[in-house]
Amino acid sequence: MRSRQMTIDLYELTMADSYLRRGKNGQATFELFVRPPLPNRRFMIAAGIDSALEYLQNLKFSDEELAYLETLGVFSREFVTYLRDFHFSGDVWAVAEGELVFPGEPLLVVRAPRIEAQIVETLLLNVVNFHTLIASKAARVRLAAGFDASLADFSPRRDHGPEAALLVAYASYLAGFDGTSNVAAGLHYGIPVIGTMAHAYVMSFDSELEAFRAFAADHPAPVLLIDTYETLRGAERALLVARELREQGRSLAGVRIDSGDLPTLTRRVRALFDEAGFPEVRIFISGDLDEYRIQAFLAAGGAAQGYGVGTRLGTSYDLPALGGVYKLVQDEGGPRFKRSPGKRTLPGRKQVWRQRGAGYIADELALADEERRGRPLLRRRMRAGAVSEAAEDLAAVRRRVLQELRSLPEDLRVIAQEPRPSYPLRLSPELGGLVARLERASD
Amino acid sequence: MRSRQMTIDLYELTMADSYLRRGKNGQATFELFVRPPLPNRRFMIAAGIDSALEYLQNLKFSDEELAYLETLGVFSREFVTYLRDFHFSGDVWAVAEGELVFPGEPLLVVRAPRIEAQIVETLLLNVVNFHTLIASKAARVRLAAGFDASLADFSPRRDHGPEAALLVAYASYLAGFDGTSNVAAGLHYGIPVIGTMAHAYVMSFDSELEAFRAFAADHPAPVLLIDTYETLRGAERALLVARELREQGRSLAGVRIDSGDLPTLTRRVRALFDEAGFPEVRIFISGDLDEYRIQAFLAAGGAAQGYGVGTRLGTSYDLPALGGVYKLVQDEGGPRFKRSPGKRTLPGRKQVWRQRGAGYIADELALADEERRGRPLLRRRMRAGAVSEAAEDLAAVRRRVLQELRSLPEDLRVIAQEPRPSYPLRLSPELGGLVARLERASD
Repeated sequence: MRSRQMTIDLYELTMADSYLRRGKNGQATFELFVRPPLPNRRFMIAAGIDSALEYLQNLKFSDEELAYLETLGVFSREFVTYLRDFHFSGDVWAVAEGELVFPGEPLLVVRAPRIEAQIVETLLLNVVNFHTLIASKAARVRLAAGFDASLADFSPRRDHGPEAALLVAYASYLAGFDGTSNVAAGLHYGIPVIGTMAHAYVMSFDSELEAFRAFAADHPAPVLLIDTYETLRGAERALLVARELREQGRSLAGVRIDSGDLPTLTRRVRALFDEAGFPEVRIFISGDLDEYRIQAFLAAGGAAQGYGVGTRLGTSYDLPALGGVYKLVQDEGGPRFKRSPGKRTLPGRKQVWRQRGAGYIADELALADEERRGRPLLRRRMRAGAVSEAAEDLAAVRRRVLQELRSLPEDLRVIAQEPRPSYPLRLSPELGGLVARLERASD
Repeated sequence: MRSRQMTIDLYELTMADSYLRRGKNGQATFELFVRPPLPNRRFMIAAGIDSALEYLQNLKFSDEELAYLETLGVFSREFVTYLRDFHFSGDVWAVAEGELVFPGEPLLVVRAPRIEAQIVETLLLNVVNFHTLIASKAARVRLAAGFDASLADFSPRRDHGPEAALLVAYASYLAGFDGTSNVAAGLHYGIPVIGTMAHAYVMSFDSELEAFRAFAADHPAPVLLIDTYETLRGAERALLVARELREQGRSLAGVRIDSGDLPTLTRRVRALFDEAGFPEVRIFISGDLDEYRIQAFLAAGGAAQGYGVGTRLGTSYDLPALGGVYKLVQDEGGPRFKRSPGKRTLPGRKQVWRQRGAGYIADELALADEERRGRPLLRRRMRAGAVSEAAEDLAAVRRRVLQELRSLPEDLRVIAQEPRPSYPLRLSPELGGLVARLERASD
């Protein structure tokens, strides 16, 4: 997208102009975190961190952009000149791309001159909110489907624009999917691309069998869509094609079923291929799937080796947005906080410490300079505007996420939609003490 | 976004390759429509049509993209050569950008060589689905808020990526919003940009009053955020600033309230300013608003002149995706259709005829060459790959949508979430006859 860096809420700029005129440009620290409640989610997978850092490192404004801002007639000449030379010079701490996190925990901490920290708010929130939203949804689908199933992102036609489709492919792969149907994501990220055939292909031939034979002849690893007319007859025709391919020394990769009573159909199709001596033919299902439906499908005895998950993954249908916010926690005047009910923030730059046992995860929020037990989640990623720790390889991030999901405590694997208490997040003694002191002082 | 044109589901390309090898590239007609049911919506506002046409007219593949496709090892050399010279050469009919439409009605009709029509499916669906989703949501917010209220898109921080934020600003403006906070949308589309101040600004001063005075001094048309500490005290301080501005021959544009009991607070703040002789100071509210909450706010006697609508607009929170599909309806073999329950399609290229009375809208689906009563909604927009009717000016589209919304029959204005029967869509005698003949023939 052209002018990605202009994804700024106007008020960030009008406030920044006012800060500049008043010389209010001391160091300020902002923390990005997701406010509870987090409906239908037991945890999140943080993502978009690396993309956010890349944005911060490259942020500058073009002549065309500056000329547009001048036409608005609300900015001082001094401010437009300031923007002409703008670059981000701050420090950033962040959790690792793919880290498992909970509401209330800072995912990204920016310490920079106040104007810089303010101007980047909108895009940081947009990018981290959306990537984390999709990675968190995808992780749940992986938990529901199990670790042996193949999972493909089939969402591009329903995602929120072409760029969203690209980002969905990235975030779902990161969180344990095996690939995407989106060719753009293959090109940009090297994610495996996956595809079968559509009903329109079958309908463009005079018979289903003719369509299957044609596709199998033209494709090295054919997966046949067998539900255009009558699924069980489609399965028999696919079996015929599997036999023909075997005679040629080739094999049928699989069949896909996109409609109907999926548990029953998959069991019968599985039995058909197994009994005929074709256990290697895989069954894929698709059609408005998500973690709830996959769980129900498996509970009903469905038999599938792969799932194509579209709309409900790519729009995070049961939770279409995260409540990510970016809040001032420290400036020249010391630690800052807000007490408003439901909009509370905690003062001071922080660290998250994780204690991990076999059956539990316990996190503690502490002040940044405290030393606590466990693993600190926030790491320095930028120093004076330059990335100080480069992004990890996407495949490595994905392996780490899968390993984390495999070892998840039982309580965090729950898929059900019933509300449950959120995971415990404790405050360290020093942070708790600071909150108490500030609350007394402001009474 | 780079490589927007590569937003293609892989199977479109594998099918296209097979069509090419087999010479199956005759004229095929596909129709894009939204399947019922359409939860929580009485109608849709079609959008993204102009963007889709621009894509079709400019579609071509770069050397880098073709080289990537070759690495996948699934395409014939002949097909990659075909893609090298690819351009879209088909005809397109579409409803006007901003047209009010119902499920089951074709929004876009593509008649082209089969391969071309197939390859463009994914991006056409993505673009029309998403724009229409947001325009439809925005129209409901306009209906709930009334036609005198000011409506601003405040969604960028929660939208599905930076490009989605841009498209949300476009689609919501088209459907009757007055502006957006998103500076990128101002630059790209000339949409008015709107902004106030954030809590962080107020907190960066030693007192609320000091913050208000500073902002008012630095901004030509200040809107003050009055709920950082205690809203009614904030209102009194804003009133003081309004008096000071009046003495300077200036005026306070408004105040914004983002939290609390909004009906009560706005009534009291309205009374405060009115009684003090400042009826021109406008009250804006924000904070997880949507059409349901605006309706409830007004029913509770709330008094606001403007609404900032964010997350729930930009993600279409109560319906995060439309069930748009793109289906083969005609090819060399004649009219095509599908009978599967829930996935039914109607055969033949079609036209939608609208009869419009004072209190009703009645649409009829007919075959393209039938002459029926009313206004035909589908117009020719492309001929042999070239746009034959250029896009209308965005401001003109918006005026047309607003006029349509103002004159909407009572039954279509309903905001409530209860399921209601969908609006009647009749079949013409010829289309009905064709369906009956084909059904008999395929029994």
